[in-house]
Parts: sequence; C-alpha cells; structure tokens
Amino acid sequence: MAHLLSTSCSFKIPSCRKPFFQSLDQGPNAFPTSFTVKTSNPLVRRVVLPGESSQRSHIVYATTTPIRQEASAQKHSALHQSSNDASKQKRVMVIGGDGYCGWATALHLSKKGYEVAIVDNLIRRLFDHQLGLDSLTPISSIQNRIRCWKYLTGKTIELYIGDICDFEFLSETFKSFEPDAVVHFGEQRSAPYSMIDRSRAVYTQHNNVIGTLNVLFAIKEFREHCHLVKLGTMGEYGTPNIDIEEGYITITHNGRTDTLPYPKQASSFYHLSKVHDSNNIAFTCKAWGIRATDLNQGVVYGVTTDETAMHEELCNRFDYDAVFGTALNRFCVQAAVGHPLTVYGKGGQTRGYLDIRDTVQCVEIAIANPAERGEFRVFNQFTEQFSVNELAALVTKAGEKLGLDVETKSVPNPRVEAEEHYYNAKHTKLIELGLKPHLLSDSLLDSLLNFAILYKDRVDSKQIMPNVSWRKIGVKPKTVTT
Amino acid sequence: MAHLLSTSCSFKIPSCRKPFFQSLDQGPNAFPTSFTVKTSNPLVRRVVLPGESSQRSHIVYATTTPIRQEASAQKHSALHQSSNDASKQKRVMVIGGDGYCGWATALHLSKKGYEVAIVDNLIRRLFDHQLGLDSLTPISSIQNRIRCWKYLTGKTIELYIGDICDFEFLSETFKSFEPDAVVHFGEQRSAPYSMIDRSRAVYTQHNNVIGTLNVLFAIKEFREHCHLVKLGTMGEYGTPNIDIEEGYITITHNGRTDTLPYPKQASSFYHLSKVHDSNNIAFTCKAWGIRATDLNQGVVYGVTTDETAMHEELCNRFDYDAVFGTALNRFCVQAAVGHPLTVYGKGGQTRGYLDIRDTVQCVEIAIANPAERGEFRVFNQFTEQFSVNELAALVTKAGEKLGLDVETKSVPNPRVEAEEHYYNAKHTKLIELGLKPHLLSDSLLDSLLNFAILYKDRVDSKQIMPNVSWRKIGVKPKTVTT
Repeated sequence: MAHLLSTSCSFKIPSCRKPFFQSLDQGPNAFPTSFTVKTSNPLVRRVVLPGESSQRSHIVYATTTPIRQEASAQKHSALHQSSNDASKQKRVMVIGGDGYCGWATALHLSKKGYEVAIVDNLIRRLFDHQLGLDSLTPISSIQNRIRCWKYLTGKTIELYIGDICDFEFLSETFKSFEPDAVVHFGEQRSAPYSMIDRSRAVYTQHNNVIGTLNVLFAIKEFREHCHLVKLGTMGEYGTPNIDIEEGYITITHNGRTDTLPYPKQASSFYHLSKVHDSNNIAFTCKAWGIRATDLNQGVVYGVTTDETAMHEELCNRFDYDAVFGTALNRFCVQAAVGHPLTVYGKGGQTRGYLDIRDTVQCVEIAIANPAERGEFRVFNQFTEQFSVNELAALVTKAGEKLGLDVETKSVPNPRVEAEEHYYNAKHTKLIELGLKPHLLSDSLLDSLLNFAILYKDRVDSKQIMPNVSWRKIGVKPKTVTT
Repeated sequence: MAHLLSTSCSFKIPSCRKPFFQSLDQGPNAFPTSFTVKTSNPLVRRVVLPGESSQRSHIVYATTTPIRQEASAQKHSALHQSSNDASKQKRVMVIGGDGYCGWATALHLSKKGYEVAIVDNLIRRLFDHQLGLDSLTPISSIQNRIRCWKYLTGKTIELYIGDICDFEFLSETFKSFEPDAVVHFGEQRSAPYSMIDRSRAVYTQHNNVIGTLNVLFAIKEFREHCHLVKLGTMGEYGTPNIDIEEGYITITHNGRTDTLPYPKQASSFYHLSKVHDSNNIAFTCKAWGIRATDLNQGVVYGVTTDETAMHEELCNRFDYDAVFGTALNRFCVQAAVGHPLTVYGKGGQTRGYLDIRDTVQCVEIAIANPAERGEFRVFNQFTEQFSVNELAALVTKAGEKLGLDVETKSVPNPRVEAEEHYYNAKHTKLIELGLKPHLLSDSLLDSLLNFAILYKDRVDSKQIMPNVSWRKIGVKPKTVTT
C-alpha cells in the first residue's frame, strides 16, 4: 500500500452538516482558500480537477513535507494556548492521526501545547470505500480538519501523507519534523478485518509489523532520544485464568524467580500483530536503548472529546458496523435504530473499556512522563471491566429512559473465544501517573444514545450483523461486500 | 523474493570432487541426461545456454509441478526400501529442503519410506552469492542431489521450486503433492543476517512470518488433516533466570493457577520472527483445529548423516562464516586453519546443542507421532547444554590430539546478550517419544575436525570474524561485503 497518493490530490470543503456542534463563521474568507506544500520531489505536479474553478477548492500535494498554510488564521495564534507547561513545546508525531483514536489524540496534544504532526496514509478511509462502510458521523477530510483546528485555535498541525511501510517516506518525515515523541496508532486495528480472508490477514500482519519495525529503525537512526508511545491492545493477553498484570509477571518456578514478559494469547491475526510488535519493540529497547511505552488499550467507547466538540469539521468518526465498530458504540446505534443488541454467543466475554476522553488523556500522560532510555514500559490502558451482557443491560436501561424499545439477541459467535471466563486485569500505572478516569455513567450513555439517534438516518442496517467468521476465513479474496 | 526463478534454468553436473565419499559409477549413462517438467504456465520457455551442447547439460523448468525424471534409474526402485512401516507412505513436504537441516531431513525421511517433496526457492544459495560466502563443503545443485538420490536408492524426491510467500505457488504445490505432513524449514535462519541492516531485518520478518501464515492457510484450505512440523528455535526463550519448560509453564499467581505459553525473550529479528510464528501457529490450532508441532531447536553441529554420506553429490552444506556458521562447526574450521577460536565476550553463553543426525531423527519422530487436531505441541529439540567456553575447550583438546595448535581469543561480542547466566532447559518430550541422542563425543569432534582439515583450502578466512553488530545495525542497505 506504499505511495497510495503518489503525487497530488484535491479536495473541497464539505457542504453544511447537521447543526450539532457550536456554530462558526463559515464566510468565504474564514478558511484559507488554497495552500501549497513543498516537496522533495522536483517533479511534483499541480492538479486542479475540471469544473472546480468556481468552487472552494484546495490543492494539496501529497508529500513528505508538511502543509504550510499560506492564508490568514495566524491572528488566532495567541488563543487557546495550553496552560500545561509540562509539554515544553515537545514535538509529537501522531502516526495514524486521521483515525478514531488518532484524530482525537492529535487535537488533545495540540491543545495541550505540544507541536503536533499527523502522519497518515488515510487507508482507513479506503477500507470504508472498499467494504461499503461509513462512519455514523460525517467526517471531514484531514486537510479540512486541520485547517479548521488552525482557524479555531491558531495552532498548526503538520500533515505528512504517506505510508510508514515505505521507509523512504518515513525517513523524510523524521528528518523534517524531528519528533521528541511518536504516538503510533498507524496500524490496521480491526480484528474482524484481519479475519476476512487470507490477503487481509497477511496485509494486517505485514502492515503492522513492518510499519512498526520502520518506526523503530527511524528512531534509532534519526532521533535516538525520541520516546515511542505504541498503541497495543488488552487483547494481546487473551483471557488467562490468572490475574493479568501490566506487561510483566514475576514467576517463581522450581525454586527460582524471575520477572518475565506476561504470556500472551492473542485471538485474531490483528491481535497477534500487536503481540509481534510488542516483542519487536522490547528487543530494540534492550539492544538499542529505545525508550518505549506500550499502551495495552481496552475497548474504546464514545466519540466526543473537548476538542472534537469544538466544531463539526472536527467531528470524530463513529464506527458501528460489524468490522470496525466496538461493542458499546455498536450497541448504542443498534438501540437507536431499533435493531436488537447483538450479543455474540453467551455474552460472558469480559474486557476492559475506556472512554475516548481517557484515551487522549492516557497518551498525554505517557508522553509527559516518558520511559527511560532502554526501558520497555507497559501500561494497561482501560478504566473499567464489563461483560458484553453487562453492557447490553446498561444500554437497555438507558434506552428505556429515552423511550426506546431495546431488545437483546444472542447471535452465533463469529469469533473463537471463551464466552465465560475469569478476568481480572490490573490497570494502576496510568492512575498512578495522574489519570482521572471518565467512568461509564448514565449521562454518558444518554449522550451516546442521543448522538446515535441524531445520526440514525445514516445507519446502514446491513452493516450491523457480524459477517466475518474466525473459522470460515478462506484463502480466496473476498471481493463482494454486500 | 517471489518468482526468483520465473521460467527456467539450466545446470551441469559438477566436476569431480575430492574422493571423500564412497565412489559411484559416473559413466555417461549413469544419470539421466535430461528431464523435463510440466508447468501450469503455457508460456514456459526452454532455454539451453550457448556452448552447452557438447556437455552433460540438463534442462529444468522452474515450476510448481514436480520434476518427472524420464531417464532410467527406475531399476533401483526396489533397493533400499525402508523397513519402517510406521511411515505408511505418508506424504511429507519439506519446505526449505535444500538447506542445511532441510536437505539432511528430506533424505532421512525418504530413506525411512516417506514420500517426500522438497519445496524451496533456493534463496539460501543466493545469500551466499550476495554476501560472498560459500559452504566449506562443495555442494551440488538440488537437481543433481535429487537425481543422485534416485540413482542410489530408487527413491523419488519431488521438487517444487518457488517461494512460499507467493500463495499461488504454494497452493499449487499443496494441490499437486497433497502432503500429510509439512516440515517447515523454509525461513531465513540466521540471526546475524537479520541484523545486517534494516532491509534484511524486514526481509527476515516478512519472509518468515508471511511464509508461515501462507502454510497455515494452505493447510486449512487444502489439507485439513495435515500435520505441520515447524522449526522454531531455543533462542525464542532467551535466557530467563528460571528453568525453561517445553512451550508452556504452569503459573500460580495470586491464588489462581493456569498453564500458559512460556514467556519469550528473543534477541534478534530472526529469533523474534520465530516467536511471531509460534504465536500465529498456536492461534490457528485453536481457531481452525490445525495440528502442529513446534520444534524449538538448539544449535546444530556436524555435517554428515547416514544418507548424506552415501555419495559426494549428496554432501550437505557446512557453514563456518560469521553470518551462517554455528558455534561448534565454526570452531572446528577455525582450529583446522590455525585461526584462534573466536569466543564472543566472556563465553559463558550457554545453549542447547544437537548433532544433525538427531535433527533428522527428531523430525521423523514428530511426523510419526503427529499432534492431535487443534493441538499446538512444543518440543525442545536439543540433547546437551554447553557454554561457548566449554565448546572451545573441547575443540582445543580434540585439536591437540590431532597435532593442531589451537588458541582461543575473546572478541568483542557483536550481539546483545547475557554472557553469564543461569540456563536449564527441559528436553524430555522427544526422548519420551524415542529419540536416541548422539551425544557430543571425542570421535565426533575428531571427525568434524578431520572434515574441516580436508576442506581447509576452501576456507576464506575473511569470513571468520564477526562483522554484524546488534548495536550498529543501520537503515542504509549494506551493499559491500568485503
């Protein structure tokens, strides 16, 4: 998937959305009407699509050098300065900064006063096209998102469009941006996607493992002091019959004791790719002195953060489909459209969960308190545990309060996993560093349900039922998605 | 590295070698003078190199279909039949069957009465060309090796030339050969090679992980009952301060108990690739019911097996260089040419070792006693533990008996590893299944040293000193090998 955008692209500002967020002057001069970028490729061509001259069209060269906005918006530069001195203008590269967690994180870090660059090949948007999916929320282009942020806050987020599996591209981003920290969300992040067919399984492991290897090499070569903050997943641990610790476990065996990496039992090619990453990163910490924090994140729910709520152009994506949607978000959409909540199998599957507002908080905490040289630090990043049945009950109760008639239905489990099991995972390290959790509350559920109701006309109910089977995955490419 | 050989190649029978092995009639009619193969590609071209008409030249089409020998040699078919009924004509695919362990294993299995096919892209030979290395022993082409085996024993070994990372190729081999067991040696198997530069690190992980994924998918799709015998490495475990178990460890933690995968601490991109493989395989055993045996092999020494000793054309490779050579074999060559034995660092590094005659025995035992459906079985495949200093002392003593003046020299350790550590690894499961170890003996060391002395004129002493640093690995491709 290297060089997805090899020379250039153009985009338009999307038409008006539902009036959900606070209003903003969208007069003809509010946003810059064009900007150009420098590129290391002297042959880069400027492309304007036919028929666009009378519209508000913006030319963006896909490039390894950041977009330099030529227009106004500088006047806002003094506004919204972070009061957080801890950031000390640290430069943070957010790989995968156009995605669900990445976008919210990039804005949060920018707000906190960090210098932020987003590196993304935008392939998550391509997956939607290919699978016929769409975010519940209309989302703006990454270019418009960044321009809107600049307009609102005066803060610049640099943008590098390209694929980190392409080391030449990644090298240029490192040399250009010179990050002090890299937050790496830039992976194929869906377990079902990795189980669609052989080619998606291979893509997931190749993309995730090689991309991360390249990031490690780039840090070693260009920014040795740079702190890698890598998004892992609680799913790496599986569901052992003992307490899950944070990355390591002290074992006494035959009279001797050692502290060793916690045994992993991942249960999809996606989850496995994260285990592979963790092992690769741990090795480079030891061999090269890389400083790294592995954030084993639980299931994220919610959509709005303080920053994404500032304007509809900043709205985050919200996945409810069976491939990219996560449990609680999916249930809220199902309740909103009158679809039964789809519990896979017995519903005793218990996992760690967290609000997306805590995702952005956790990443900031990790950056503000970096790992030591050579340290491979693992934090379990979630705030509460729920079983699927518990979540369904919570959504049912919240839905009834809003007058919704919420049913729950057990569907055959498309995954291979224990449906009743012991689960007790530690998650104290981020709390110790200052995390103030947003626990799941009635008001958050209300707000999520209302959010889903607001956008329910955008729901494609064909995307709700699981259609990827762990057992039936085959070698032939799945080319039909209906 | 897909389609290394896309259409065809030609080869000649090598000229006479040193008279080490038993003699064989090499008259003009002893071997078939040509053979052709079918291919699924209708555009395949027949190529004869200029000037070859008067020589004994054989045309081989690189193809996914096996070489069908048209010539005689059938007369030998009744000879050397295995007395081992356990094999029951099981069909065994040996991936990487042209390599050091793979070739010896393929012959051993063929001798035992299994129907054997070798699948190999021959890239190990390309590595030698690219790095300017060569086996201590002259080795014949895979085609000549197989023809010689047929001549001597009447047994056919089918040959599929291609890359298992190319799933189209692998599919055809599965459909054509229909294996009951797959022995998978087909990986980049050198830790130093994986640490040469970024591109070799990425190649190693991509090649090993994706190749193995493809094998798993091929088994699932085409031969569900097929038993995967995968070569892992003892290096996956690292050097924990507790006893190393065979694949799993029972942990009691906070009052609860579970048996979990043994924690891994691999210490090169190569070793890590094997850990990734193990995790991927374990998942597919659980999710798909794959039956698999992971052979965590120690360091292999020796060169001769009963089968490779039958004729010089069957001679196995013997690597003594710093990239592919393994400890004991390297020391014997160093002693033979009067080079100091190169101990890395303090020399307390302790590992499991085994004779190559036990490698072939272990693999046969694993095949004869397959894993159950859904079972992921791990055997530690070695017979004795030695520290590097102990090996150096053994070679010194054996060399002195032969009148060699053997010195030992500590060189800066190019690796990142503990040089003094606890090490106690279990290795009982293969013994319980019937392994009769060839322990390291004075006579074996004598024979290895004599072997090295016999070929010492072929030693390139520039290849002896370590030239790959775990810490200095960079992102620029290393293109100069001198």
